[in-house]
Amino acid sequence: MRLATLQDGTRDGRLVVVSPDGGHSAAAPMPTLQAALENWAEVAPVLAAISHFPDALDPAQILAPLPRAWQWLDGSVYPSHGALMDKALNITPFKPDWPPMYQGVSDTFYSALADVPMADEALGIDFEGEFGIITDAVPMGVTPAQAAKHIRLIVQINDWSLRKLAGPEMRSGFGWIQAKPPCGMAPFAITPDELGDYWRSARPALHLAVDLNGQRFGNAYGEPMAYGFDDLVAHAARTRNLVAGTVIGSGTVSNENYREVGSSCIAERRGIEIVDHGEPRTEFMKYGDRVRMEAHLPDGRAPFGAIEQRVVKP
Amino acid sequence: MRLATLQDGTRDGRLVVVSPDGGHSAAAPMPTLQAALENWAEVAPVLAAISHFPDALDPAQILAPLPRAWQWLDGSVYPSHGALMDKALNITPFKPDWPPMYQGVSDTFYSALADVPMADEALGIDFEGEFGIITDAVPMGVTPAQAAKHIRLIVQINDWSLRKLAGPEMRSGFGWIQAKPPCGMAPFAITPDELGDYWRSARPALHLAVDLNGQRFGNAYGEPMAYGFDDLVAHAARTRNLVAGTVIGSGTVSNENYREVGSSCIAERRGIEIVDHGEPRTEFMKYGDRVRMEAHLPDGRAPFGAIEQRVVKP
Repeated sequence: MRLATLQDGTRDGRLVVVSPDGGHSAAAPMPTLQAALENWAEVAPVLAAISHFPDALDPAQILAPLPRAWQWLDGSVYPSHGALMDKALNITPFKPDWPPMYQGVSDTFYSALADVPMADEALGIDFEGEFGIITDAVPMGVTPAQAAKHIRLIVQINDWSLRKLAGPEMRSGFGWIQAKPPCGMAPFAITPDELGDYWRSARPALHLAVDLNGQRFGNAYGEPMAYGFDDLVAHAARTRNLVAGTVIGSGTVSNENYREVGSSCIAERRGIEIVDHGEPRTEFMKYGDRVRMEAHLPDGRAPFGAIEQRVVKP
Repeated sequence: MRLATLQDGTRDGRLVVVSPDGGHSAAAPMPTLQAALENWAEVAPVLAAISHFPDALDPAQILAPLPRAWQWLDGSVYPSHGALMDKALNITPFKPDWPPMYQGVSDTFYSALADVPMADEALGIDFEGEFGIITDAVPMGVTPAQAAKHIRLIVQINDWSLRKLAGPEMRSGFGWIQAKPPCGMAPFAITPDELGDYWRSARPALHLAVDLNGQRFGNAYGEPMAYGFDDLVAHAARTRNLVAGTVIGSGTVSNENYREVGSSCIAERRGIEIVDHGEPRTEFMKYGDRVRMEAHLPDGRAPFGAIEQRVVKP
């Protein structure tokens, strides 16, 4: 099942179920995705039973599946990303034996086709292509096996980042505020069964194609997460209950063979350049620059649709 | 003007205006505090004009003024707190020339009289007494002077903390997830004019009395913030718009003469003990322990009411 949220003048939009071909939709019997997640066990079969999709889907009307969420927690579980970021940001953080995770701004998730305002071109504007999941209500203290059952939807995320601010904020020990403006989300939130065998140990076995200004930038593979989303949910829930609609991210998709597959953010490529040339050579984004992100199954299907965002002056 | 939120079976409760004596209330014409903040310029005069308070106020029915918020950002701007915490947590973070700030869980603010479930007694359960403010919508890039005008309400907060997890999470550079379960809020949110001359340069000139299991633990003074709430709002808004209902905290209230005034959290006292004796001596909280926090004006009035919370097993 694929779900989308359409503009209707409200902050949370209007929930629809998307047709198998991605071109049509049917109104859901509850107003919002948040409302559906708060009652998922009852609601999901009702939504899944919808088989008639009367309305043409206009991509320009699609918001993020959750245009705002009560909680956004982003992990960083691709080891090659962490290693390259340490070089790019010139930091040597303590490497924990648990998944690094920060809490980010959740009151806004930009739609897939949004123009994204950034405060200043000089701040090192960067994208981060990643996967995410959305939970229903998760009680404090769940095990990873229990947590897996609370992963109700999978999403694709662009975690916008301002790199010039990232290193100092990390060194403060408090994590990121200014370095992490709101994220974007691809149009469709999908249930795990949509991925079939490509949802493996709570990891998405898809390639994430990333294009910067029309040029292929990376096509990293999603599966080699050091921790699965089940582990991430359990980590987040160790000392708190997670509310329905909690969004948890994987961190930038990255592979050990990054010279072959490329990168899902600019900073990582700059880290590679520091290794190779002693200095970074790829510039960060400027106003007007565009990034496109689309995850693919081996048969070419793009279950989340594509993010195509442009950086603009506020 | 003092506002409170009463239980009504919904997550966001029902907004009331509180009588000058704190014992009565009048229903507000809009359902929730969040709704009021989204339209504050129009709404505030309507609420302020209410002068008849027909309903007796039952403390047991009072929720946090915002039982959940779209954003909670906590600063740490009392220099003596930072210095003692570094000793207590055995860390030496980079000291930035801006106010340290993290984003915390905002989907739950416990009511003032709540029993607060903590995952494990062994995690170093601690309180943090602090002040906070609530904004209306703040545009990206405001100056501190502009930010000051968006400070619509002042609140008193207990920022619950799990100290055994705090140091490792800080060293990871990602900030706190497990070390920071939800906070509690005192019953009343107040407009800045309620403090009169005791709201100075966007700082609360009040003493915060903190009692642990009935014994006075601290009575630190709120004014000596290294950054005012105007600076904190501007810092938070540098690269993001702040939604109406954003809550921003001061961090633990702490004074340089901590040997005289005591502390607003246990970890800080342990930091002093490490200085004095080479080791901490005060235990963290156990299940059943109680903390009380009440800020006072010089005339003895407690404008926010009191937090009285007990730690319990989940």
